[in-house]
Amino acid sequence: MASTQKGETQFEIPKTCKAGVVVNEGPDFRVEIQDVDVPEPGPDEVLLKLNATGLCMSDVHFMMNDWAVPPMSTFNVKCAGHEGAGVVVKLGANVKGWKIGDRGGVKPLWDVCGKCELCWDGKENYCQKGIYTGLAATGTYQQYITSPARYTSPIPDGVSDYVAGPIMCSASTMHRALIDSGLKVGQWVVFPGGGGGVGIQGVQLAKAMGMRAIVIDTGAAKRKLSLEMGAESFIDFKDVPNVAEEVKKVAGGVGAHGVIVTAYQAYKDAISYIANRIGGVVVCVGLPPKDLMTIGADPSFFSFRNLKIMGSLVGTMQDTAMALEYAQRGLLKQICEVRGLSQLPESVQQLRRGEIAGRIVIDFEKP
Amino acid sequence: MASTQKGETQFEIPKTCKAGVVVNEGPDFRVEIQDVDVPEPGPDEVLLKLNATGLCMSDVHFMMNDWAVPPMSTFNVKCAGHEGAGVVVKLGANVKGWKIGDRGGVKPLWDVCGKCELCWDGKENYCQKGIYTGLAATGTYQQYITSPARYTSPIPDGVSDYVAGPIMCSASTMHRALIDSGLKVGQWVVFPGGGGGVGIQGVQLAKAMGMRAIVIDTGAAKRKLSLEMGAESFIDFKDVPNVAEEVKKVAGGVGAHGVIVTAYQAYKDAISYIANRIGGVVVCVGLPPKDLMTIGADPSFFSFRNLKIMGSLVGTMQDTAMALEYAQRGLLKQICEVRGLSQLPESVQQLRRGEIAGRIVIDFEKP
Amino acid sequence: MASTQKGETQFEIPKTCKAGVVVNEGPDFRVEIQDVDVPEPGPDEVLLKLNATGLCMSDVHFMMNDWAVPPMSTFNVKCAGHEGAGVVVKLGANVKGWKIGDRGGVKPLWDVCGKCELCWDGKENYCQKGIYTGLAATGTYQQYITSPARYTSPIPDGVSDYVAGPIMCSASTMHRALIDSGLKVGQWVVFPGGGGGVGIQGVQLAKAMGMRAIVIDTGAAKRKLSLEMGAESFIDFKDVPNVAEEVKKVAGGVGAHGVIVTAYQAYKDAISYIANRIGGVVVCVGLPPKDLMTIGADPSFFSFRNLKIMGSLVGTMQDTAMALEYAQRGLLKQICEVRGLSQLPESVQQLRRGEIAGRIVIDFEKP
Amino acid sequence: MASTQKGETQFEIPKTCKAGVVVNEGPDFRVEIQDVDVPEPGPDEVLLKLNATGLCMSDVHFMMNDWAVPPMSTFNVKCAGHEGAGVVVKLGANVKGWKIGDRGGVKPLWDVCGKCELCWDGKENYCQKGIYTGLAATGTYQQYITSPARYTSPIPDGVSDYVAGPIMCSASTMHRALIDSGLKVGQWVVFPGGGGGVGIQGVQLAKAMGMRAIVIDTGAAKRKLSLEMGAESFIDFKDVPNVAEEVKKVAGGVGAHGVIVTAYQAYKDAISYIANRIGGVVVCVGLPPKDLMTIGADPSFFSFRNLKIMGSLVGTMQDTAMALEYAQRGLLKQICEVRGLSQLPESVQQLRRGEIAGRIVIDFEKP
Repeated sequence: MASTQKGETQFEIPKTCKAGVVVNEGPDFRVEIQDVDVPEPGPDEVLLKLNATGLCMSDVHFMMNDWAVPPMSTFNVKCAGHEGAGVVVKLGANVKGWKIGDRGGVKPLWDVCGKCELCWDGKENYCQKGIYTGLAATGTYQQYITSPARYTSPIPDGVSDYVAGPIMCSASTMHRALIDSGLKVGQWVVFPGGGGGVGIQGVQLAKAMGMRAIVIDTGAAKRKLSLEMGAESFIDFKDVPNVAEEVKKVAGGVGAHGVIVTAYQAYKDAISYIANRIGGVVVCVGLPPKDLMTIGADPSFFSFRNLKIMGSLVGTMQDTAMALEYAQRGLLKQICEVRGLSQLPESVQQLRRGEIAGRIVIDFEKP
Repeated sequence: MASTQKGETQFEIPKTCKAGVVVNEGPDFRVEIQDVDVPEPGPDEVLLKLNATGLCMSDVHFMMNDWAVPPMSTFNVKCAGHEGAGVVVKLGANVKGWKIGDRGGVKPLWDVCGKCELCWDGKENYCQKGIYTGLAATGTYQQYITSPARYTSPIPDGVSDYVAGPIMCSASTMHRALIDSGLKVGQWVVFPGGGGGVGIQGVQLAKAMGMRAIVIDTGAAKRKLSLEMGAESFIDFKDVPNVAEEVKKVAGGVGAHGVIVTAYQAYKDAISYIANRIGGVVVCVGLPPKDLMTIGADPSFFSFRNLKIMGSLVGTMQDTAMALEYAQRGLLKQICEVRGLSQLPESVQQLRRGEIAGRIVIDFEKP
Repeated sequence: MASTQKGETQFEIPKTCKAGVVVNEGPDFRVEIQDVDVPEPGPDEVLLKLNATGLCMSDVHFMMNDWAVPPMSTFNVKCAGHEGAGVVVKLGANVKGWKIGDRGGVKPLWDVCGKCELCWDGKENYCQKGIYTGLAATGTYQQYITSPARYTSPIPDGVSDYVAGPIMCSASTMHRALIDSGLKVGQWVVFPGGGGGVGIQGVQLAKAMGMRAIVIDTGAAKRKLSLEMGAESFIDFKDVPNVAEEVKKVAGGVGAHGVIVTAYQAYKDAISYIANRIGGVVVCVGLPPKDLMTIGADPSFFSFRNLKIMGSLVGTMQDTAMALEYAQRGLLKQICEVRGLSQLPESVQQLRRGEIAGRIVIDFEKP
Repeated sequence: MASTQKGETQFEIPKTCKAGVVVNEGPDFRVEIQDVDVPEPGPDEVLLKLNATGLCMSDVHFMMNDWAVPPMSTFNVKCAGHEGAGVVVKLGANVKGWKIGDRGGVKPLWDVCGKCELCWDGKENYCQKGIYTGLAATGTYQQYITSPARYTSPIPDGVSDYVAGPIMCSASTMHRALIDSGLKVGQWVVFPGGGGGVGIQGVQLAKAMGMRAIVIDTGAAKRKLSLEMGAESFIDFKDVPNVAEEVKKVAGGVGAHGVIVTAYQAYKDAISYIANRIGGVVVCVGLPPKDLMTIGADPSFFSFRNLKIMGSLVGTMQDTAMALEYAQRGLLKQICEVRGLSQLPESVQQLRRGEIAGRIVIDFEKP
């Protein structure tokens, strides 16, 4: 058994490790816990021992292969997952800037090319040569994985792995969406479904960034959570006859400045929340099933109101760093349920069946 | 006959003046040249003697009343027109900053409130209390009209009235669209129908602003004009099997960064010109007939490519000043046909019937 | 006695009113409470009955005439003051958008030209034809004053006149400085003397805008106030050997991203707080006595660190509106001492002698 | 002799190559042409065979070691130079995205860390772990050098090596300065000494970016060159009594919006060119001898005019790409004198003695 050392810490690196492996890739896939080989880091990579991985609906899509991407098997990848938090246990030969024992996280993009215009312009989340974690590179359902040193996100002190894991994807994505929106301090932003696992991170970030969040969701629990996490207003869509009217009332009698759509069901009404606000913007983040819908409007409508519809994908390296900083400052709390590794297979199926509220985090060390 | 004086210039202000008055407002309207009273400027207004007025398709819409606005008669307005250039011949009691003999122009917005957030933020073109010229205030088909001193656009030396008139609307609008687009120096921008009267001003402004213009239009004349006016490429849509492919080829093998749509027929294909360019933007300027069409896309499409669809309306005071400055520098030429006042009624009908290519300017002093 | 009416409210407008009049303008000036004529609003003006006026050091400079501006007497102005909050009691003939009984405030700029590039670009605070209140137009030491309808700031419900008064100048100015600085959400900003009357408003605004404020000041009271008002750190300059080192320690080991200098004594060390932060900025707001000092550095220093020194003056209409909105939301509290009108003359002398900590507000209705 | 191949091209890589080696580092240094070993590229590096290197004054400073940096010998570096253009002749084991035969250039920064906030934010030119070419990594006075694959700048077709070489430093730096300045299309920008080798590139870029360039320099040759290259105005400082007055006259009677200072002698007057322009900016690029001077002003001056002084260093990867694109479009011409390798030693001494006007490029293949 190899080992590395940091100060007095000693990391023993096993030959094999536990992993949630996809079996029968496709519509009837399942996840099995198996022993797999611990990989060797390339010269520019680090080897991470993950303590936690979040579960994200994209994992399910990759394992079902119902999105317009090649199947995982094309890339010889057996493990999904892209919200990993752990510790560096081994360094590739050329790695600088990382030490054994440093904490690091893995994001939806495992690596980017680093030499295209997008990469150099802080838009590397759109790099056309980006490699998706858990699709084209082994994902965070496996405890020991390699990660490019340059694109591994350092996790600051004071942010637990349970918090850091899901930040890699959802909070970072929400940060990017809020930045991309161009919304300014003091402006109103609507989060449809904002009481859920992703939206609630948007709410907290919006508040931290000086915006005024309105959550549209339902139920007393989500109301309580939303208001505690910083929403200025909660609109229960079951309680009001006209949600858009309600948004208008809350937001200065005019309507919100922006809407961040994370769940595709909200696209239908999203424009109505900003329709009367000159310069209002709808940010498309949630991906609907293929060919299900269009979001758009009469061009005159865009023109008379200076409205905007735009899309935003995942967070950049910088967004992840910012989200982690907010977490460190206590301004971004993660609301998640922690489960042991043995529960991973069933949790994935629950996620697929839509039975999970909020975010599940798997602790690799918990049985 | 009253008169005012500037240096040695003496302006004799008649009691009545010529005007192109709308008769039988509605689908069967016509314009008649009539004598009307010369108005008296209010305390904060100037009286302008116009030398030229451009004709714009919106004039027809206002006289037909086929847009979703109240009829001109509601406002007791008899003259359409909003592209006026002339000279100040009388000052209201409180007017400062204008002298008799100064040159001034009237824009699509006759006045704005000057005290809302939009007005103070350089977005006064969206002021919700804005008063449209030729609809809610007497338009530029009348030779003598009043104009708020504060919102009259000074016309610089070296820009003729024939050039300044149409700048008030079309060039100013194109300037705003280019600014709103967020497009940067060195980026590719497509002008569908860019060989026409409005588009060609966009082409010139784009070039002056350091962007690279692609015109999509047809015919040798428009090709020649477009290339002379600064387009880097002209795509004749009758000559190529796939316009979007052609745009892609011209624009770095990827596609344009932006599209400015001025003619509604172009909305159908506009997205295809930017579909592969991360961060691409479609700017909606042209207004289609009511309820005719929607522009939009699958939200995933926006998201994966960071695309944007947005609307832009008319130019601001600042846009007009900028467009006039470009004209003064020789970077914005007006391509128009000048006709005498007696031709106004028939010219309007030709405009309505789509028989006019380019821009018509009426010279009030020409018979 | 004339009177106007709003709903059931009845405003009796007296012929004369109380005012703090400057006597013996110059180095030995004093302020006397006198009865002066209530002015008549011009056609575009409103008549305000002020309830409160803040006192600002600039008032003293105008009355002493020790700045490079013509004396007040040149403009036939007898009353200083530019932080007024009250109620509209009469409307000029042309005034729209204001009703009797509406609350309104008067700022350092009494009016701007409204037709220059700066005015149209949201930079009207630099309008070269701007008229300074209490210098070239009668100031807020007089209870009844006129104000241009278009440039009077509406005061929203929930913000008392005691709070609104000083916002007109100090909070609005701080808002502008923070916007001008280009500092972003999450960045560190230093307020030297931030425990004082002006700085503490910057601290609150910085927090509301998502920035992280560091106050440099001294004493337990200022520490307590600063931390309560949202500073993340308070550095007592009497307690630490090297303030810049302390700033560096607090601000990520690198130093702050920006410094807002309101008291000229802080210019000396301001650069040291950002010296190691690439892109750091010093914003000059406080005006030192004439020819006393220079702020600058070796050009190489600017170059290697991408540093910036810039100036910011007073707030715009928009800044004032934003600051009032923050106050309405409870994010901007005014810390002031309220005194009666009879105390105005002595308070001004105390201000001049540097004997006043924080902000004094004069209540016209209080003896 | 090893060799590599691209299509039918065959690159024979020699064991040794010619280089301009520094001898007697320090005040009395000289450059000698020597044979040195051709280096082996690391796993993430390419080996470049340079055809051309520009000479830059910084080379002299590094060889004299009169700047506040460690001497070249500390890093075991014998060759200065950071404006190299050539062709990739060998790839490190991990290199992707480069092929043998691709053209590539080397910039003032040989590499950056790629994982700090600055690197991810498009400000990698300020990366605190950046490695300077010709100081801490072997410079372009040596024909065969290695370069990190990720940070080597691709040179597009249509841009000769003689043009591409100096672009790596001077044009790229000017592009960054213009972007950093925040100057907008249509604004006036002054280039003191703009008829020289660096300034003239700024002039061309400014024009390409839609700005209006004013050159301050002297002599008929520089006047001709400046105007041909796109300056709107040339002010011969020997012909006018007051340069600032002249700038004011040219720039709308107010003064320029910005000044880009490349030669330190110009700092003295730079502020005067923008002193009356609200929001004016001075960009510090040229590095004066240590402790020679300060640029600054009375804080009131900054405040009343909203003025700005800022620094800018070298260009980023993105700036270099943009400058190369302008060159490819014919908008950026290089004005340089090409000399053979044997002239390198004496050319460096001439540069040191200030005897060189414009830019010298050394052709390695020319004797």
